[in-house]
Amino acid sequence: MNIYQTYEPSQIRELIRKKEITGPTAGLAEGYAQANLMIVKKELAFDFLLFCQRNPAACPLLDVLEPGDPVPRKSAPKADIRTDFPKYRIYRKGILQEEVSDISAYWEDDMVAFLIGCSFTFEHALMLNDIPVRHIENGHNVPMYQTNIACKRAGVFHGPMVVSMRPIPAHQITRSVQVTSRFPSVHGGPIHIGDPAMIGIANVDQPDFGETSVIKEGEVPVFWACGVTPQAVVMHTKPEIAITHAPGHMFITDQRDQQLGVL
Amino acid sequence: MNIYQTYEPSQIRELIRKKEITGPTAGLAEGYAQANLMIVKKELAFDFLLFCQRNPAACPLLDVLEPGDPVPRKSAPKADIRTDFPKYRIYRKGILQEEVSDISAYWEDDMVAFLIGCSFTFEHALMLNDIPVRHIENGHNVPMYQTNIACKRAGVFHGPMVVSMRPIPAHQITRSVQVTSRFPSVHGGPIHIGDPAMIGIANVDQPDFGETSVIKEGEVPVFWACGVTPQAVVMHTKPEIAITHAPGHMFITDQRDQQLGVL
Repeated sequence: MNIYQTYEPSQIRELIRKKEITGPTAGLAEGYAQANLMIVKKELAFDFLLFCQRNPAACPLLDVLEPGDPVPRKSAPKADIRTDFPKYRIYRKGILQEEVSDISAYWEDDMVAFLIGCSFTFEHALMLNDIPVRHIENGHNVPMYQTNIACKRAGVFHGPMVVSMRPIPAHQITRSVQVTSRFPSVHGGPIHIGDPAMIGIANVDQPDFGETSVIKEGEVPVFWACGVTPQAVVMHTKPEIAITHAPGHMFITDQRDQQLGVL
Repeated sequence: MNIYQTYEPSQIRELIRKKEITGPTAGLAEGYAQANLMIVKKELAFDFLLFCQRNPAACPLLDVLEPGDPVPRKSAPKADIRTDFPKYRIYRKGILQEEVSDISAYWEDDMVAFLIGCSFTFEHALMLNDIPVRHIENGHNVPMYQTNIACKRAGVFHGPMVVSMRPIPAHQITRSVQVTSRFPSVHGGPIHIGDPAMIGIANVDQPDFGETSVIKEGEVPVFWACGVTPQAVVMHTKPEIAITHAPGHMFITDQRDQQLGVL
Protein backbone atom coordinates (compact mmCIF):
# COMPACT_ATOMS: atom_id res chain seq x y z
CA MET A 1 0.00 0.00 0.00
CA ASN A 2 1.29 3.44 -0.86
CA ILE A 3 -0.33 6.84 -0.54
CA TYR A 4 -0.39 7.31 -4.32
CA GLN A 5 -2.24 4.04 -4.99
CA THR A 6 -5.64 5.73 -5.26
CA TYR A 7 -4.52 8.88 -7.11
CA GLU A 8 -5.81 9.60 -10.61
CA PRO A 9 -3.28 9.21 -13.45
CA SER A 10 -3.31 12.98 -14.09
CA GLN A 11 -2.46 13.66 -10.43
CA ILE A 12 0.48 11.26 -10.52
CA ARG A 13 1.74 12.76 -13.78
CA GLU A 14 1.60 16.24 -12.27
CA LEU A 15 3.66 15.11 -9.26
CA ILE A 16 6.17 13.51 -11.62
CA ARG A 17 6.35 16.69 -13.70
CA LYS A 18 7.02 18.68 -10.51
CA LYS A 19 9.68 16.11 -9.57
CA GLU A 20 7.84 15.27 -6.37
CA ILE A 21 7.74 11.65 -7.55
CA THR A 22 11.12 10.56 -8.94
CA GLY A 23 11.25 6.80 -8.30
CA PRO A 24 9.73 3.61 -9.78
CA THR A 25 6.02 3.80 -10.57
CA ALA A 26 4.83 0.28 -9.65
CA GLY A 27 1.63 0.47 -7.64
CA LEU A 28 0.84 4.12 -8.45
CA ALA A 29 -2.68 4.94 -9.72
CA GLU A 30 -3.64 1.30 -9.38
CA GLY A 31 -5.82 -0.05 -12.16
CA TYR A 32 -4.42 2.24 -14.87
CA ALA A 33 -2.07 0.99 -17.58
CA GLN A 34 1.54 2.11 -17.45
CA ALA A 35 3.82 2.35 -20.47
CA ASN A 36 7.42 1.88 -21.57
CA LEU A 37 8.98 4.49 -23.87
CA MET A 38 11.06 4.40 -27.04
CA ILE A 39 11.86 7.52 -29.05
CA VAL A 40 13.65 7.41 -32.40
CA LYS A 41 14.15 9.85 -35.26
CA LYS A 42 11.54 9.84 -38.03
CA GLU A 43 13.96 8.23 -40.50
CA LEU A 44 13.98 5.10 -38.30
CA ALA A 45 10.32 5.21 -37.30
CA PHE A 46 9.05 2.85 -40.01
CA ASP A 47 11.68 0.28 -39.11
CA PHE A 48 10.88 0.51 -35.41
CA LEU A 49 7.12 0.37 -35.98
CA LEU A 50 7.67 -2.73 -38.11
CA PHE A 51 9.91 -4.16 -35.36
CA CYS A 52 7.03 -3.76 -32.89
CA GLN A 53 4.59 -5.33 -35.33
CA ARG A 54 6.87 -8.35 -35.73
CA ASN A 55 7.63 -8.66 -32.01
CA PRO A 56 4.24 -8.02 -30.40
CA ALA A 57 5.01 -9.94 -27.21
CA ALA A 58 8.03 -7.79 -26.37
CA CYS A 59 6.82 -4.52 -27.95
CA PRO A 60 3.01 -4.33 -27.79
CA LEU A 61 2.10 -0.80 -28.84
CA LEU A 62 -0.30 1.20 -26.69
CA ASP A 63 0.19 4.42 -28.64
CA VAL A 64 2.38 5.83 -31.41
CA LEU A 65 2.66 9.60 -31.38
CA GLU A 66 2.71 11.75 -34.49
CA PRO A 67 6.21 12.74 -35.62
CA GLY A 68 7.28 15.75 -33.54
CA ASP A 69 4.25 15.51 -31.26
CA PRO A 70 4.97 14.90 -27.54
CA VAL A 71 1.28 14.45 -26.63
CA PRO A 72 -0.12 10.88 -26.47
CA ARG A 73 -3.50 11.77 -27.98
CA LYS A 74 -4.91 8.27 -27.66
CA SER A 75 -3.71 7.13 -24.25
CA ALA A 76 -3.38 10.38 -22.24
CA PRO A 77 -4.36 13.44 -24.29
CA LYS A 78 -3.37 15.98 -21.61
CA ALA A 79 0.07 14.54 -20.90
CA ASP A 80 3.50 15.33 -22.32
CA ILE A 81 5.91 12.43 -22.73
CA ARG A 82 8.92 14.79 -22.41
CA THR A 83 8.22 15.49 -18.74
CA ASP A 84 5.82 12.85 -17.44
CA PHE A 85 8.19 9.90 -16.89
CA PRO A 86 10.18 10.03 -13.62
CA LYS A 87 13.40 9.04 -15.35
CA TYR A 88 14.70 8.75 -18.91
CA ARG A 89 17.75 7.24 -20.55
CA ILE A 90 19.61 8.91 -23.41
CA TYR A 91 21.39 6.44 -25.70
CA ARG A 92 23.85 7.65 -28.35
CA LYS A 93 25.13 5.07 -30.85
CA GLY A 94 23.84 2.35 -28.55
CA ILE A 95 25.66 3.56 -25.46
CA LEU A 96 23.80 4.78 -22.38
CA GLN A 97 25.06 8.36 -22.00
CA GLU A 98 22.98 9.72 -19.17
CA GLU A 99 19.82 9.48 -17.12
CA VAL A 100 17.65 12.60 -16.86
CA SER A 101 14.28 13.51 -15.37
CA ASP A 102 13.12 15.70 -18.28
CA ILE A 103 13.90 15.40 -22.00
CA SER A 104 12.55 18.75 -23.21
CA ALA A 105 16.10 19.85 -24.06
CA TYR A 106 16.65 16.69 -26.14
CA TRP A 107 13.36 16.72 -28.04
CA GLU A 108 13.48 17.43 -31.77
CA ASP A 109 10.75 18.03 -34.32
CA ASP A 110 11.52 14.83 -36.21
CA MET A 111 11.32 12.50 -33.23
CA VAL A 112 8.64 9.81 -32.95
CA ALA A 113 7.61 8.41 -29.56
CA PHE A 114 6.31 4.88 -29.03
CA LEU A 115 4.44 3.89 -25.86
CA ILE A 116 4.75 0.17 -25.18
CA GLY A 117 2.55 -1.88 -22.83
CA CYS A 118 3.86 -2.78 -19.37
CA SER A 119 3.41 -5.93 -17.32
CA PHE A 120 2.16 -3.95 -14.31
CA THR A 121 -1.30 -4.34 -15.88
CA PHE A 122 -1.33 -8.11 -15.72
CA GLU A 123 0.34 -8.17 -12.30
CA HIS A 124 -2.74 -6.53 -10.88
CA ALA A 125 -4.85 -9.20 -12.61
CA LEU A 126 -2.61 -11.96 -11.20
CA MET A 127 -3.04 -10.62 -7.67
CA LEU A 128 -6.82 -10.42 -8.10
CA ASN A 129 -6.55 -14.16 -8.87
CA ASP A 130 -4.59 -14.77 -5.64
CA ILE A 131 -1.42 -15.51 -7.59
CA PRO A 132 1.50 -14.01 -5.66
CA VAL A 133 3.76 -11.42 -7.32
CA ARG A 134 7.01 -11.69 -5.39
CA HIS A 135 8.65 -8.35 -6.26
CA ILE A 136 5.50 -6.49 -5.24
CA GLU A 137 5.21 -8.52 -2.01
CA ASN A 138 8.84 -7.68 -1.24
CA GLY A 139 8.77 -4.11 -2.54
CA HIS A 140 11.53 -4.22 -5.13
CA ASN A 141 11.85 -3.82 -8.92
CA VAL A 142 11.00 -6.87 -11.08
CA PRO A 143 14.03 -8.97 -12.20
CA MET A 144 14.71 -8.70 -15.94
CA TYR A 145 17.08 -10.74 -18.10
CA GLN A 146 18.55 -10.60 -21.56
CA THR A 147 17.80 -13.96 -23.26
CA ASN A 148 19.13 -15.97 -26.20
CA ILE A 149 15.78 -15.50 -27.97
CA ALA A 150 16.39 -13.31 -31.02
CA CYS A 151 13.71 -10.78 -31.82
CA LYS A 152 12.51 -10.81 -35.42
CA ARG A 153 14.55 -8.26 -37.34
CA ALA A 154 12.90 -5.25 -39.00
CA GLY A 155 15.08 -2.96 -41.09
CA VAL A 156 17.99 -1.85 -38.92
CA PHE A 157 16.47 -3.09 -35.68
CA HIS A 158 17.50 -6.43 -34.22
CA GLY A 159 18.61 -7.83 -30.90
CA PRO A 160 17.74 -10.20 -28.07
CA MET A 161 14.44 -10.33 -26.21
CA VAL A 162 14.47 -9.11 -22.62
CA VAL A 163 12.13 -10.95 -20.23
CA SER A 164 10.82 -10.35 -16.73
CA MET A 165 10.50 -13.23 -14.24
CA ARG A 166 7.90 -14.04 -11.60
CA PRO A 167 8.11 -17.16 -9.40
CA ILE A 168 4.70 -18.89 -9.60
CA PRO A 169 3.48 -21.78 -7.39
CA ALA A 170 3.33 -24.87 -9.64
CA HIS A 171 -0.40 -25.39 -9.17
CA GLN A 172 -1.13 -21.83 -10.32
CA ILE A 173 0.85 -21.85 -13.57
CA THR A 174 -2.09 -22.70 -15.81
CA ARG A 175 -4.17 -19.92 -14.28
CA SER A 176 -1.30 -17.45 -14.66
CA VAL A 177 -1.14 -18.32 -18.38
CA GLN A 178 -4.89 -17.81 -18.72
CA VAL A 179 -4.96 -14.52 -16.83
CA THR A 180 -2.05 -12.92 -18.67
CA SER A 181 -3.15 -14.19 -22.10
CA ARG A 182 -6.17 -11.90 -21.77
CA PHE A 183 -3.79 -8.95 -22.10
CA PRO A 184 -1.79 -9.24 -25.34
CA SER A 185 -1.20 -5.47 -25.37
CA VAL A 186 0.81 -5.76 -22.14
CA HIS A 187 2.96 -8.74 -23.25
CA GLY A 188 0.28 -11.46 -23.02
CA GLY A 189 1.03 -15.03 -21.92
CA PRO A 190 4.47 -16.23 -20.78
CA ILE A 191 7.37 -16.68 -23.22
CA HIS A 192 8.90 -19.47 -21.15
CA ILE A 193 8.02 -21.59 -18.11
CA GLY A 194 10.71 -23.36 -16.11
CA ASP A 195 14.46 -23.87 -16.63
CA PRO A 196 16.08 -20.43 -17.12
CA ALA A 197 19.05 -22.00 -18.96
CA MET A 198 16.80 -22.96 -21.88
CA ILE A 199 16.45 -19.29 -22.80
CA GLY A 200 20.06 -18.43 -22.10
CA ILE A 201 19.79 -17.20 -18.52
CA ALA A 202 22.88 -18.49 -16.70
CA ASN A 203 21.95 -17.38 -13.21
CA VAL A 204 18.38 -16.47 -12.33
CA ASP A 205 19.64 -14.78 -9.15
CA GLN A 206 21.62 -12.24 -11.18
CA PRO A 207 19.18 -10.24 -13.31
CA ASP A 208 20.52 -7.89 -16.00
CA PHE A 209 18.03 -5.19 -14.96
CA GLY A 210 15.98 -4.72 -11.77
CA GLU A 211 16.44 -6.83 -8.65
CA THR A 212 16.47 -10.52 -7.68
CA SER A 213 13.21 -12.26 -6.73
CA VAL A 214 13.46 -15.21 -4.33
CA ILE A 215 12.07 -18.47 -5.80
CA LYS A 216 10.50 -20.49 -3.00
CA GLU A 217 10.11 -24.28 -2.68
CA GLY A 218 7.31 -25.45 -4.99
CA GLU A 219 7.55 -22.40 -7.24
CA VAL A 220 8.59 -22.31 -10.89
CA PRO A 221 10.20 -19.32 -12.61
CA VAL A 222 7.85 -18.01 -15.30
CA PHE A 223 9.12 -15.54 -17.91
CA TRP A 224 7.22 -12.86 -19.81
CA ALA A 225 8.49 -10.69 -22.67
CA CYS A 226 9.47 -7.27 -21.33
CA GLY A 227 9.18 -3.69 -22.56
CA VAL A 228 12.86 -3.15 -21.78
CA THR A 229 13.58 -5.15 -24.96
CA PRO A 230 13.88 -1.92 -27.04
CA GLN A 231 16.82 -0.90 -24.85
CA ALA A 232 18.66 -4.15 -25.62
CA VAL A 233 17.80 -3.57 -29.28
CA VAL A 234 19.16 -0.02 -29.17
CA MET A 235 22.42 -1.35 -27.73
CA HIS A 236 22.68 -3.74 -30.69
CA THR A 237 21.43 -1.40 -33.41
CA LYS A 238 23.35 1.71 -32.30
CA PRO A 239 21.19 4.51 -33.76
CA GLU A 240 22.62 8.05 -33.50
CA ILE A 241 20.15 8.81 -30.72
CA ALA A 242 17.38 6.97 -28.92
CA ILE A 243 15.56 7.96 -25.76
CA THR A 244 13.85 5.47 -23.45
CA HIS A 245 12.42 5.42 -19.94
CA ALA A 246 14.61 4.07 -17.12
CA PRO A 247 13.48 0.52 -16.22
CA GLY A 248 10.63 0.61 -13.72
CA HIS A 249 10.11 4.37 -14.17
CA MET A 250 7.03 4.30 -16.36
CA PHE A 251 4.38 6.58 -17.84
CA ILE A 252 0.89 6.35 -16.36
CA THR A 253 -1.80 6.47 -19.04
CA ASP A 254 -5.49 7.31 -18.71
CA GLN A 255 -6.43 3.82 -19.96
CA ARG A 256 -7.74 1.35 -17.40
CA ASP A 257 -6.03 -2.04 -17.26
CA GLN A 258 -9.35 -3.77 -17.79
CA GLN A 259 -9.91 -1.90 -21.05
CA LEU A 260 -6.89 -3.75 -22.44
CA GLY A 261 -8.38 -7.23 -21.91
CA VAL A 262 -9.29 -9.00 -25.16
CA LEU A 263 -12.17 -10.89 -23.59
CA MET B 1 -18.26 -28.62 -49.71
CA ASN B 2 -15.88 -27.99 -52.56
CA ILE B 3 -13.14 -30.16 -54.00
CA TYR B 4 -10.43 -27.73 -52.87
CA GLN B 5 -11.56 -27.72 -49.23
CA THR B 6 -8.96 -30.28 -48.14
CA TYR B 7 -6.07 -29.02 -50.30
CA GLU B 8 -2.93 -27.68 -48.66
CA PRO B 9 -2.36 -23.90 -48.92
CA SER B 10 0.63 -24.43 -51.24
CA GLN B 11 -1.50 -26.53 -53.61
CA ILE B 12 -4.20 -23.86 -53.79
CA ARG B 13 -1.61 -21.14 -54.37
CA GLU B 14 -0.11 -23.14 -57.22
CA LEU B 15 -3.53 -23.52 -58.88
CA ILE B 16 -4.10 -19.77 -58.47
CA ARG B 17 -0.68 -19.03 -59.98
CA LYS B 18 -1.55 -21.25 -62.96
CA LYS B 19 -4.90 -19.44 -63.21
CA GLU B 20 -6.79 -22.69 -62.68
CA ILE B 21 -8.49 -21.03 -59.71
CA THR B 22 -9.65 -17.50 -60.56
CA GLY B 23 -12.68 -16.91 -58.31
CA PRO B 24 -13.37 -16.14 -54.63
CA THR B 25 -11.36 -18.18 -52.14
CA ALA B 26 -13.91 -18.74 -49.34
CA GLY B 27 -13.83 -22.37 -48.22
CA LEU B 28 -10.52 -23.25 -49.92
CA ALA B 29 -7.85 -24.99 -47.79
CA GLU B 30 -10.20 -24.98 -44.83
CA GLY B 31 -8.58 -24.21 -41.49
CA TYR B 32 -5.85 -21.97 -42.92
CA ALA B 33 -5.90 -18.20 -42.52
CA GLN B 34 -6.57 -16.09 -45.60
CA ALA B 35 -5.38 -12.52 -46.06
CA ASN B 36 -6.35 -9.19 -47.58
CA LEU B 37 -3.72 -7.19 -49.47
CA MET B 38 -2.59 -3.58 -49.51
CA ILE B 39 0.51 -2.43 -51.39
CA VAL B 40 1.86 1.12 -51.18
CA LYS B 41 5.13 2.81 -52.07
CA LYS B 42 7.83 2.92 -49.40
CA GLU B 43 7.36 6.67 -48.87
CA LEU B 44 3.82 5.96 -47.58
CA ALA B 45 4.65 2.75 -45.74
CA PHE B 46 5.19 4.32 -42.31
CA ASP B 47 1.88 6.16 -42.54
CA PHE B 48 0.03 3.01 -43.58
CA LEU B 49 1.69 0.86 -40.93
CA LEU B 50 0.69 3.46 -38.35
CA PHE B 51 -2.84 3.48 -39.80
CA CYS B 52 -3.03 -0.28 -39.21
CA GLN B 53 -1.68 0.10 -35.68
CA ARG B 54 -4.36 2.70 -34.91
CA ASN B 55 -7.17 0.76 -36.57
CA PRO B 56 -6.46 -2.82 -35.50
CA ALA B 57 -10.06 -4.01 -35.87
CA ALA B 58 -10.23 -3.07 -39.55
CA CYS B 59 -6.56 -3.62 -40.43
CA PRO B 60 -5.11 -6.39 -38.24
CA LEU B 61 -1.68 -7.18 -39.68
CA LEU B 62 -0.75 -10.78 -40.35
CA ASP B 63 2.49 -9.92 -42.13
CA VAL B 64 4.36 -6.87 -43.42
CA LEU B 65 6.83 -7.64 -46.18
CA GLU B 66 10.23 -6.01 -46.51
CA PRO B 67 10.31 -3.09 -48.95
CA GLY B 68 10.68 -4.54 -52.46
CA ASP B 69 10.23 -8.12 -51.26
CA PRO B 70 7.22 -10.02 -52.69
CA VAL B 71 7.72 -13.05 -50.41
CA PRO B 72 5.69 -13.24 -47.16
CA ARG B 73 8.51 -14.73 -45.09
CA LYS B 74 6.44 -15.04 -41.93
CA SER B 75 3.08 -16.26 -43.18
CA ALA B 76 3.94 -18.23 -46.36
CA PRO B 77 7.69 -18.26 -47.07
CA LYS B 78 7.39 -20.06 -50.43
CA ALA B 79 4.67 -17.83 -51.87
CA ASP B 80 4.81 -14.70 -54.03
CA ILE B 81 2.18 -12.06 -53.40
CA ARG B 82 2.47 -10.82 -57.02
CA THR B 83 0.92 -13.99 -58.43
CA ASP B 84 -0.81 -15.85 -55.61
CA PHE B 85 -4.05 -13.88 -55.29
CA PRO B 86 -6.74 -14.80 -57.85
CA LYS B 87 -7.55 -11.16 -58.55
CA TYR B 88 -6.02 -7.75 -57.82
CA ARG B 89 -7.19 -4.16 -58.09
CA ILE B 90 -4.95 -1.35 -59.32
CA TYR B 91 -5.88 2.05 -57.89
CA ARG B 92 -4.32 5.25 -59.26
CA LYS B 93 -5.03 8.48 -57.36
CA GLY B 94 -7.83 6.70 -55.55
CA ILE B 95 -9.61 5.52 -58.68
CA LEU B 96 -9.99 1.83 -59.51
CA GLN B 97 -8.25 1.55 -62.88
CA GLU B 98 -8.29 -2.16 -63.58
CA GLU B 99 -8.55 -5.67 -62.20
CA VAL B 100 -5.77 -8.11 -63.08
CA SER B 101 -4.80 -11.67 -62.14
CA ASP B 102 -1.04 -11.01 -61.81
CA ILE B 103 0.76 -7.84 -60.70
CA SER B 104 4.33 -8.77 -61.70
CA ALA B 105 4.29 -6.04 -64.35
CA TYR B 106 3.21 -3.45 -61.76
CA TRP B 107 5.63 -4.40 -59.01
CA GLU B 108 8.41 -1.94 -58.16
CA ASP B 109 11.43 -2.21 -55.89
CA ASP B 110 10.13 0.41 -53.48
CA MET B 111 6.74 -1.18 -52.88
CA VAL B 112 5.72 -2.53 -49.47
CA ALA B 113 3.03 -5.21 -49.15
CA PHE B 114 0.77 -5.57 -46.13
CA LEU B 115 -1.20 -8.78 -45.47
CA ILE B 116 -4.28 -8.12 -43.38
CA GLY B 117 -6.33 -10.71 -41.49
CA CYS B 118 -9.59 -11.97 -42.98
CA SER B 119 -12.87 -12.90 -41.31
CA PHE B 120 -12.91 -16.31 -43.02
CA THR B 121 -10.89 -17.50 -39.99
CA PHE B 122 -13.57 -16.69 -37.46
CA GLU B 123 -16.37 -17.87 -39.75
CA HIS B 124 -14.97 -21.36 -39.47
CA ALA B 125 -14.92 -20.95 -35.68
CA LEU B 126 -18.55 -19.70 -35.72
CA MET B 127 -19.66 -22.75 -37.69
CA LEU B 128 -17.84 -25.09 -35.30
CA ASN B 129 -20.03 -23.44 -32.62
CA ASP B 130 -23.20 -24.16 -34.64
CA ILE B 131 -23.68 -20.47 -35.38
CA PRO B 132 -24.95 -20.17 -38.96
CA VAL B 133 -22.98 -18.15 -41.52
CA ARG B 134 -25.58 -17.17 -44.10
CA HIS B 135 -23.37 -16.30 -47.09
CA ILE B 136 -21.55 -19.62 -46.77
CA GLU B 137 -24.85 -21.52 -46.41
CA ASN B 138 -26.11 -19.80 -49.55
CA GLY B 139 -22.83 -19.85 -51.45
CA HIS B 140 -22.32 -16.15 -52.14
CA ASN B 141 -19.81 -13.43 -51.20
CA VAL B 142 -20.24 -11.77 -47.78
CA PRO B 143 -22.12 -8.41 -47.81
CA MET B 144 -19.85 -5.43 -47.02
CA TYR B 145 -20.80 -1.82 -46.30
CA GLN B 146 -19.10 1.53 -46.02
CA THR B 147 -20.06 3.03 -42.62
CA ASN B 148 -20.11 6.45 -40.98
CA ILE B 149 -17.43 5.26 -38.54
CA ALA B 150 -14.25 7.23 -39.26
CA CYS B 151 -11.01 5.31 -39.01
CA LYS B 152 -8.34 6.97 -36.88
CA ARG B 153 -6.15 9.04 -39.18
CA ALA B 154 -2.44 8.29 -39.57
CA GLY B 155 -0.37 10.63 -41.71
CA VAL B 156 -2.06 10.86 -45.12
CA PHE B 157 -4.37 7.91 -44.53
CA HIS B 158 -7.96 8.45 -43.44
CA GLY B 159 -11.39 7.28 -44.45
CA PRO B 160 -14.46 5.33 -43.34
CA MET B 161 -14.48 1.84 -41.89
CA VAL B 162 -15.89 -0.91 -44.08
CA VAL B 163 -17.76 -3.68 -42.26
CA SER B 164 -19.05 -7.13 -43.16
CA MET B 165 -22.45 -8.34 -41.92
CA ARG B 166 -23.67 -11.72 -40.73
CA PRO B 167 -27.27 -12.32 -39.56
CA ILE B 168 -27.04 -14.08 -36.16
CA PRO B 169 -29.95 -15.70 -34.25
CA ALA B 170 -30.60 -13.48 -31.21
CA HIS B 171 -29.87 -16.22 -28.68
CA GLN B 172 -26.42 -16.82 -30.23
CA ILE B 173 -25.15 -13.22 -30.25
CA THR B 174 -23.24 -13.49 -26.97
CA ARG B 175 -21.51 -16.66 -28.14
CA SER B 176 -20.65 -15.05 -31.49
CA VAL B 177 -18.99 -12.17 -29.60
CA GLN B 178 -17.01 -14.62 -27.46
CA VAL B 179 -15.92 -16.80 -30.38
CA THR B 180 -14.77 -13.95 -32.61
CA SER B 181 -13.09 -12.03 -29.76
CA ARG B 182 -10.59 -14.89 -29.55
CA PHE B 183 -9.26 -13.78 -32.94
CA PRO B 184 -8.17 -10.12 -32.78
CA SER B 185 -5.81 -10.64 -35.72
CA VAL B 186 -8.76 -11.41 -37.99
CA HIS B 187 -10.92 -8.43 -36.89
CA GLY B 188 -11.93 -9.74 -33.43
CA GLY B 189 -15.35 -9.09 -31.88
CA PRO B 190 -18.17 -7.22 -33.64
CA ILE B 191 -18.04 -3.46 -34.24
CA HIS B 192 -21.82 -3.12 -34.08
CA ILE B 193 -24.84 -5.29 -33.20
CA GLY B 194 -28.31 -4.38 -34.43
CA ASP B 195 -29.74 -1.33 -36.24
CA PRO B 196 -27.69 -0.75 -39.42
CA ALA B 197 -28.73 2.93 -39.52
CA MET B 198 -26.73 3.64 -36.36
CA ILE B 199 -23.50 3.12 -38.29
CA GLY B 200 -24.70 4.88 -41.42
CA ILE B 201 -25.98 1.92 -43.43
CA ALA B 202 -29.16 3.11 -45.16
CA ASN B 203 -30.23 -0.20 -46.66
CA VAL B 204 -28.81 -3.46 -45.37
CA ASP B 205 -30.10 -5.20 -48.50
CA GLN B 206 -27.84 -3.10 -50.72
CA PRO B 207 -24.23 -3.80 -49.75
CA ASP B 208 -21.44 -1.63 -51.20
CA PHE B 209 -19.30 -4.72 -51.87
CA GLY B 210 -20.20 -8.42 -52.10
CA GLU B 211 -23.77 -9.73 -52.12
CA THR B 212 -26.91 -9.46 -49.98
CA SER B 213 -27.48 -11.89 -47.10
CA VAL B 214 -31.08 -12.64 -46.15
CA ILE B 215 -31.89 -11.75 -42.50
CA LYS B 216 -34.43 -14.26 -41.18
CA GLU B 217 -37.08 -13.79 -38.47
CA GLY B 218 -35.39 -13.81 -35.05
CA GLU B 219 -31.99 -12.88 -36.44
CA VAL B 220 -30.05 -9.68 -35.78
CA PRO B 221 -27.53 -8.14 -38.18
CA VAL B 222 -24.07 -8.23 -36.60
CA PHE B 223 -21.23 -6.19 -38.11
CA TRP B 224 -17.49 -6.85 -38.04
CA ALA B 225 -14.70 -4.56 -39.24
CA CYS B 226 -13.55 -5.67 -42.69
CA GLY B 227 -10.23 -5.92 -44.50
CA VAL B 228 -11.72 -4.07 -47.46
CA THR B 229 -11.38 -0.90 -45.35
CA PRO B 230 -7.99 -0.07 -46.96
CA GLN B 231 -9.74 0.18 -50.33
CA ALA B 232 -12.18 2.78 -48.97
CA VAL B 233 -9.19 4.55 -47.45
CA VAL B 234 -7.32 4.52 -50.77
CA MET B 235 -10.36 6.09 -52.46
CA HIS B 236 -10.24 8.90 -49.87
CA THR B 237 -6.47 9.33 -49.66
CA LYS B 238 -5.74 9.10 -53.40
CA PRO B 239 -2.10 7.93 -53.40
CA GLU B 240 -0.38 7.84 -56.82
CA ILE B 241 -0.66 4.06 -56.85
CA ALA B 242 -2.02 1.39 -54.53
CA ILE B 243 -2.62 -2.27 -55.25
CA THR B 244 -5.13 -4.40 -53.34
CA HIS B 245 -6.82 -7.77 -53.74
CA ALA B 246 -10.31 -7.88 -55.25
CA PRO B 247 -12.89 -8.38 -52.45
CA GLY B 248 -13.32 -12.08 -51.67
CA HIS B 249 -10.27 -13.06 -53.74
CA MET B 250 -7.79 -13.65 -50.94
CA PHE B 251 -4.32 -15.00 -50.29
CA ILE B 252 -4.09 -18.34 -48.49
CA THR B 253 -1.33 -18.38 -45.88
CA ASP B 254 0.43 -21.33 -44.27
CA GLN B 255 -0.84 -20.25 -40.83
CA ARG B 256 -3.63 -22.28 -39.28
CA ASP B 257 -6.69 -20.36 -38.09
CA GLN B 258 -6.30 -21.84 -34.63
CA GLN B 259 -2.77 -20.45 -34.33
CA LEU B 260 -4.31 -16.97 -34.42
CA GLY B 261 -6.47 -17.48 -31.32
CA VAL B 262 -5.32 -15.44 -28.32
CA LEU B 263 -6.53 -18.02 -25.81
